Amino acid sequence: MFGSMSSTPEATARTGDAAWLQAMLDFESALAASQAEAGIVPAEAAEDIAAHCRAELFDAASIGERAVSSATPVIALVKDLTALVGPDSRPHVHRGATSQDVIDTGAMLVIRDVLELVLADLRAAARQCARLAEEHRGTVLIARSLLQQALPTTFGLRCAGWLTALDEAIAGVARFAPAVQFGGAAGTLASLGSRGPQVLSGVAERLGLAEPVLPWHTDRTRIAELAGALGTASGVLGKIALDVELHAQTEVGELTEGKPGGSSAMPHKQNPAASVLITAATQRVPGLVATLLSAMPQAYERAAGAWQSEWQPLTELLRLSAAAARRTRELLEGLRVHPDRMAANLDLTRGLVLAENAAGRLMGALGRTDAQELVAELCRRTAERGSTLRAELLAEPRVRAVLSEPEVVAATSPEDYLGAASDFIDRALAAHTGWEKR
Amino acid sequence: MFGSMSSTPEATARTGDAAWLQAMLDFESALAASQAEAGIVPAEAAEDIAAHCRAELFDAASIGERAVSSATPVIALVKDLTALVGPDSRPHVHRGATSQDVIDTGAMLVIRDVLELVLADLRAAARQCARLAEEHRGTVLIARSLLQQALPTTFGLRCAGWLTALDEAIAGVARFAPAVQFGGAAGTLASLGSRGPQVLSGVAERLGLAEPVLPWHTDRTRIAELAGALGTASGVLGKIALDVELHAQTEVGELTEGKPGGSSAMPHKQNPAASVLITAATQRVPGLVATLLSAMPQAYERAAGAWQSEWQPLTELLRLSAAAARRTRELLEGLRVHPDRMAANLDLTRGLVLAENAAGRLMGALGRTDAQELVAELCRRTAERGSTLRAELLAEPRVRAVLSEPEVVAATSPEDYLGAASDFIDRALAAHTGWEKR
Amino acid sequence: MFGSMSSTPEATARTGDAAWLQAMLDFESALAASQAEAGIVPAEAAEDIAAHCRAELFDAASIGERAVSSATPVIALVKDLTALVGPDSRPHVHRGATSQDVIDTGAMLVIRDVLELVLADLRAAARQCARLAEEHRGTVLIARSLLQQALPTTFGLRCAGWLTALDEAIAGVARFAPAVQFGGAAGTLASLGSRGPQVLSGVAERLGLAEPVLPWHTDRTRIAELAGALGTASGVLGKIALDVELHAQTEVGELTEGKPGGSSAMPHKQNPAASVLITAATQRVPGLVATLLSAMPQAYERAAGAWQSEWQPLTELLRLSAAAARRTRELLEGLRVHPDRMAANLDLTRGLVLAENAAGRLMGALGRTDAQELVAELCRRTAERGSTLRAELLAEPRVRAVLSEPEVVAATSPEDYLGAASDFIDRALAAHTGWEKR
Amino acid sequence: MFGSMSSTPEATARTGDAAWLQAMLDFESALAASQAEAGIVPAEAAEDIAAHCRAELFDAASIGERAVSSATPVIALVKDLTALVGPDSRPHVHRGATSQDVIDTGAMLVIRDVLELVLADLRAAARQCARLAEEHRGTVLIARSLLQQALPTTFGLRCAGWLTALDEAIAGVARFAPAVQFGGAAGTLASLGSRGPQVLSGVAERLGLAEPVLPWHTDRTRIAELAGALGTASGVLGKIALDVELHAQTEVGELTEGKPGGSSAMPHKQNPAASVLITAATQRVPGLVATLLSAMPQAYERAAGAWQSEWQPLTELLRLSAAAARRTRELLEGLRVHPDRMAANLDLTRGLVLAENAAGRLMGALGRTDAQELVAELCRRTAERGSTLRAELLAEPRVRAVLSEPEVVAATSPEDYLGAASDFIDRALAAHTGWEKR
Repeated sequence: MFGSMSSTPEATARTGDAAWLQAMLDFESALAASQAEAGIVPAEAAEDIAAHCRAELFDAASIGERAVSSATPVIALVKDLTALVGPDSRPHVHRGATSQDVIDTGAMLVIRDVLELVLADLRAAARQCARLAEEHRGTVLIARSLLQQALPTTFGLRCAGWLTALDEAIAGVARFAPAVQFGGAAGTLASLGSRGPQVLSGVAERLGLAEPVLPWHTDRTRIAELAGALGTASGVLGKIALDVELHAQTEVGELTEGKPGGSSAMPHKQNPAASVLITAATQRVPGLVATLLSAMPQAYERAAGAWQSEWQPLTELLRLSAAAARRTRELLEGLRVHPDRMAANLDLTRGLVLAENAAGRLMGALGRTDAQELVAELCRRTAERGSTLRAELLAEPRVRAVLSEPEVVAATSPEDYLGAASDFIDRALAAHTGWEKR
Repeated sequence: MFGSMSSTPEATARTGDAAWLQAMLDFESALAASQAEAGIVPAEAAEDIAAHCRAELFDAASIGERAVSSATPVIALVKDLTALVGPDSRPHVHRGATSQDVIDTGAMLVIRDVLELVLADLRAAARQCARLAEEHRGTVLIARSLLQQALPTTFGLRCAGWLTALDEAIAGVARFAPAVQFGGAAGTLASLGSRGPQVLSGVAERLGLAEPVLPWHTDRTRIAELAGALGTASGVLGKIALDVELHAQTEVGELTEGKPGGSSAMPHKQNPAASVLITAATQRVPGLVATLLSAMPQAYERAAGAWQSEWQPLTELLRLSAAAARRTRELLEGLRVHPDRMAANLDLTRGLVLAENAAGRLMGALGRTDAQELVAELCRRTAERGSTLRAELLAEPRVRAVLSEPEVVAATSPEDYLGAASDFIDRALAAHTGWEKR
Repeated sequence: MFGSMSSTPEATARTGDAAWLQAMLDFESALAASQAEAGIVPAEAAEDIAAHCRAELFDAASIGERAVSSATPVIALVKDLTALVGPDSRPHVHRGATSQDVIDTGAMLVIRDVLELVLADLRAAARQCARLAEEHRGTVLIARSLLQQALPTTFGLRCAGWLTALDEAIAGVARFAPAVQFGGAAGTLASLGSRGPQVLSGVAERLGLAEPVLPWHTDRTRIAELAGALGTASGVLGKIALDVELHAQTEVGELTEGKPGGSSAMPHKQNPAASVLITAATQRVPGLVATLLSAMPQAYERAAGAWQSEWQPLTELLRLSAAAARRTRELLEGLRVHPDRMAANLDLTRGLVLAENAAGRLMGALGRTDAQELVAELCRRTAERGSTLRAELLAEPRVRAVLSEPEVVAATSPEDYLGAASDFIDRALAAHTGWEKR
Repeated sequence: MFGSMSSTPEATARTGDAAWLQAMLDFESALAASQAEAGIVPAEAAEDIAAHCRAELFDAASIGERAVSSATPVIALVKDLTALVGPDSRPHVHRGATSQDVIDTGAMLVIRDVLELVLADLRAAARQCARLAEEHRGTVLIARSLLQQALPTTFGLRCAGWLTALDEAIAGVARFAPAVQFGGAAGTLASLGSRGPQVLSGVAERLGLAEPVLPWHTDRTRIAELAGALGTASGVLGKIALDVELHAQTEVGELTEGKPGGSSAMPHKQNPAASVLITAATQRVPGLVATLLSAMPQAYERAAGAWQSEWQPLTELLRLSAAAARRTRELLEGLRVHPDRMAANLDLTRGLVLAENAAGRLMGALGRTDAQELVAELCRRTAERGSTLRAELLAEPRVRAVLSEPEVVAATSPEDYLGAASDFIDRALAAHTGWEKR
């Protein structure tokens, strides 16, 4: 019931029992085929095994229950597979492999299939950010630091910031190269004599996975790197969602989700439901990353608990990442931007957010210190009188001695104090185009 | 498939969709009944609602899917419940309640039901520790620090240590008092006028939950305290499993699980499968605790993501705790202790582990420094010659001048250098009896 | 440089090298005195040792450097202490103790001294919440869920919620009972023969610590429970700071810190500096709690790394807790509340936040469904026309047929839709008084 | 005192107050110089500023204390720097910069300087692994899974596994590219008009940092990626330390640290002190990584707490990484390998660990199932009689009918059942050479 909110139907399917089973069976099938090629297993047996390596022939619940007594589901899986194939094929099932070969390779296949979803959604989200950055290049809003209004910026620049972060995060996720696991009980492939590496290579090729330097049973760098990359991506998505939630506050009102959650009792509410789910998903990721990193020190050739602790957190991490990426993509696709509210909020301090600019324009004539002191005095006056900084500047002889009315107006116009905002947008878009081309 | 290894059938049932649904429906039913008692809702409506608050009438998967658009399953649940009851009852469903009232109260009911399992297993595990402490009061083994042999102790004292830790952890878990959640959208129960507290009280009573001081929507101390208590218990269980894994090493061989996992290819293996699963479960707990603690700062009257991030980690924490407690209980019930291997390992250093004792016995006559230097010399000699410390002591005139042969034998007998081990066992058993009586 | 922001001067002093050294020396001193009492050590030696157990006689940096080769600072500490005392006292330094006895007992003394600070500040913060709850019992503001305006509540009720959470968290921290650690290398106190428990008792009494059931070297429930309690308290403080940050937003403006951080370039900024530091401190706590919980499984009688990993996270946890408690206390003492902005924000939706109330008042005459539909229609009209819900209600004949003008005014007055807010404040204050009396 | 054990003197120096101060001052100096180049600041002022940007002219403690009121040390730092320079230079200090520009750029410089240490030690450690892999290519020992003896492998292959993991982790750390931070209060560099990007570029060049696409105040991917990379490296180091601790157990005795920690009272102890400190350091890393990932969602243009929570965990992460890398390097440089104990442990099961091999050699003649059943029977017999599997094979007519005595001897010789161990070592060494050449 809660799972729908923290996954997507596709990610759930690609990480469910059937997907895991099929991934493990794909290993068994590729193993037999590679061994047939190497002359270790009769071709007929390999075909027989391949024909029965279909998840729908297995009962995941039963395998799960039987897994408890041995702390691995593979013994039951291999037993059931062996029972399915013909008598002559039985000796050739799972030859030379150890439980961890099956699960680790299966995990890599599951990861690959989910990352495909995650990357597609992250890339689509990045493209939305690029679109928004371009569209809102001139949409001025107030930048906020420590949740206080600071200086003007543009919504386009904010979106360019999201874009750059996403591009960076995508590169990290895309860098992940899933590799086959195959080493046998001791990582030596001893039962295959000298033909171990050949079979290893064959399995990798058949499954479309990288061939590792050597079996990596207790080298968990792959899992850790994946966790780090998804953790980084998740943090970027969480930042976007946080921004949307804050902008969507009733009192701020600068953004609305395309399909806000409603409330029959409170018709005015426009709940940022997608952002809430993204936040809920991404907040859970650091704990999972820590769990996977904590599991890295694995004893000798096979861990007594640490490895086994990875399976569910890894599955959960994949689902949460897929959910957060999908919802961010949809959020950005539907995002409603309210330039009028942005403009209104820019005026809330009646010009005080431009004090820095006004002082800057006076410095040439008055010197830095005097200019700053004068503007500070006018800011106090603005606050006391409930007037605007522009009015106070226009009314002040020391200002008017050096700035014309149009100059004062420009000095207090947010759109004239945006510095390199547009340049930075261009840089972000150019960099994004570079990433896309890779 | 992996879930069976990190839960128990009972815990899975009590935390599954049906259990969560029923818990939420129990809230709705108790709410209507309490409002009927307060004269807010007609008695017939309350009965009609109660009659339909049965999980089997609802489709959890559908509710989960519909939850995505609003970031809560309660809107769909209430809609479906409303559709089930008669037209006259409809206006009385979920009156005055907010989504979080339903889920938080539901969570408390789920927690209560799982803690019952957890506590039963933890208490049974503690009783096993008490039994082992008593039975092995005189079973001498080597204490190890930094995985190095140190001084003799008894297996009974080790078990007494497990016992005391378990007793302390049980007290923490047992202290948890689940409380009803009911405050309406703003925590004021405004739509009930002045009758809110009366209804709150009625709901608490009907559900057998504590009545809170006030609605606690964004006061997550209950969740945090539960997380802390289960985190502590989990750490204790992880310690026991780690000890068993280490003792069960082929090279140590002092303990064997009652039902070790086997391996057809490696008939000599006695895999500590239960310990592995306990380790795998408990290693995941700190990350979940951190996630729940990180979710504590919840904005205003309802969080935008932090609260929603609790649901699955809480469920997972309950399952892992139940699994670890159950497996530890079973592990201890079946644990096979090998005093012969303990004795053999005590002799591995050929007496060097008793150097401290030997020096102590010589101090009265030789002074502390001289005694220590003499023994250090004899230890070196023992190592070089491959002899035993006892032999070197007996052969050394400076020793024999002050200690008789029986005294040397006693000085090098592990069972004569156990200090307060037996006293401490008594203290642990007495304290345990005290805990049991509470 | 950064440390000042995440600690207090007092907490830094009580957790610094000198404090740790003194705490460890206090153990050595109490140990010698207790052994003198038990007749194991000459009284003169105990006095000599006590006279030299003063941190200022030791060089923490040197001890730290020498600690690296043995993974414990105690060997160097004991060596230096031994060198300081007279020759006759030397054999009596650290008798029967192990490194972990010194550090664990020292940690308990350090913890006790810091918890005194933490509890004082938490209690003072709670009293401020009680004051604010009472003072702002009638200060109406809008409750917000998912950062959207929801229904009216009072600032007093919000403060009552903070109060109840703090009271609960304080109880958890106050429950912590530091206990002496003393077991010798194997936890048997073997070198003291039968007098171990007597000495253990004497040390506990001298240091004002609880006497444990048995040595708890690899039973880390104490550390875990402390971590859980401080983690819970930290989460409560983080929630208060988050609320203040959100209320202090330029666009919300309902709260200002007593001493906001300024910015010369941006004179309008009122940075919630205390809240920022509380947030920064409390966000780091869950990771530390997880680290301490992860360290619980400690092998055999002394861990090979897990125990040693506790020292700095524990110190850091104490400092962060002290900093967050102190800053929250000061924040609450100086908090400036702006009822005018609260009132203004209540009007932002022009009455829509009271739609639920209006519908409720029409139900008696129109039935629930018709009443809700009518109000929904008027809400849409309010939004389209930019009018107020009150105006639309007054202008609508179907409403006026059943409600008088004063009734409509009441239905759209936030202060008339507060339900049990005041009752809940009373309950929180009463419960707080109960906690204070304990 | 504890800090020495979890850092190195060099890392402590490069992350201490003076280092942080200097890094922040380097930013101010480079900023002024770049602005002089761009004609914004007089050259004399830039020189004056540069001349005073020396950490020894500042009081870190005082800056730290003053940081509390504004939640940033930069205001005090800039004030002190401004006071140091001549009156004409004062207006040109910190121009256009915001507090976060100084700290983030400073952090990048600190990180760069520590990573230099970390990478040097990681690479040296990898070279030691390569040496050990080569030297112990033929050193047979028993592989262990779930802490149970499994099949033979070589210590060289184990070291090759460490090597490959280290190489992978090094690549991740080396990939980190520190970038300058410079955006001003809103990330627009507004006060520099159109010259912002030029100055940004100049600062990057002067500091030897990468120039970012745009200011990254609330894009924390850099910090997250660093955390992930160090988390991965840390996990690899933790795995090596765990292996050494386990191999160094008194009962296993296959490895000894070069400089084990001693114990005066227990002369037989060879404490794996370096491994203990590596374990203690690396166990703390996942919590820090989680804390840094949790801080990624940073609001708007400047976070209210999340950013500020990074400073100390980042410093700590760097120190722990440096400590773990240094100690692993030293550990591997001094590691003493005991092939005699490895050989002795291989014999512990009296040949049962070679049952798989024996069965494999019989399969050709007897068929898989019969071969396995026969060997299983002989294994039981071996256990019952306390004989060896070789003896039972030699005594069994069904075996001797198909295998000669030399064949039986080979089948029960560990060194003849190593599969691709040597090949895998070659592959790891070749890959390592490839990494080194990059």
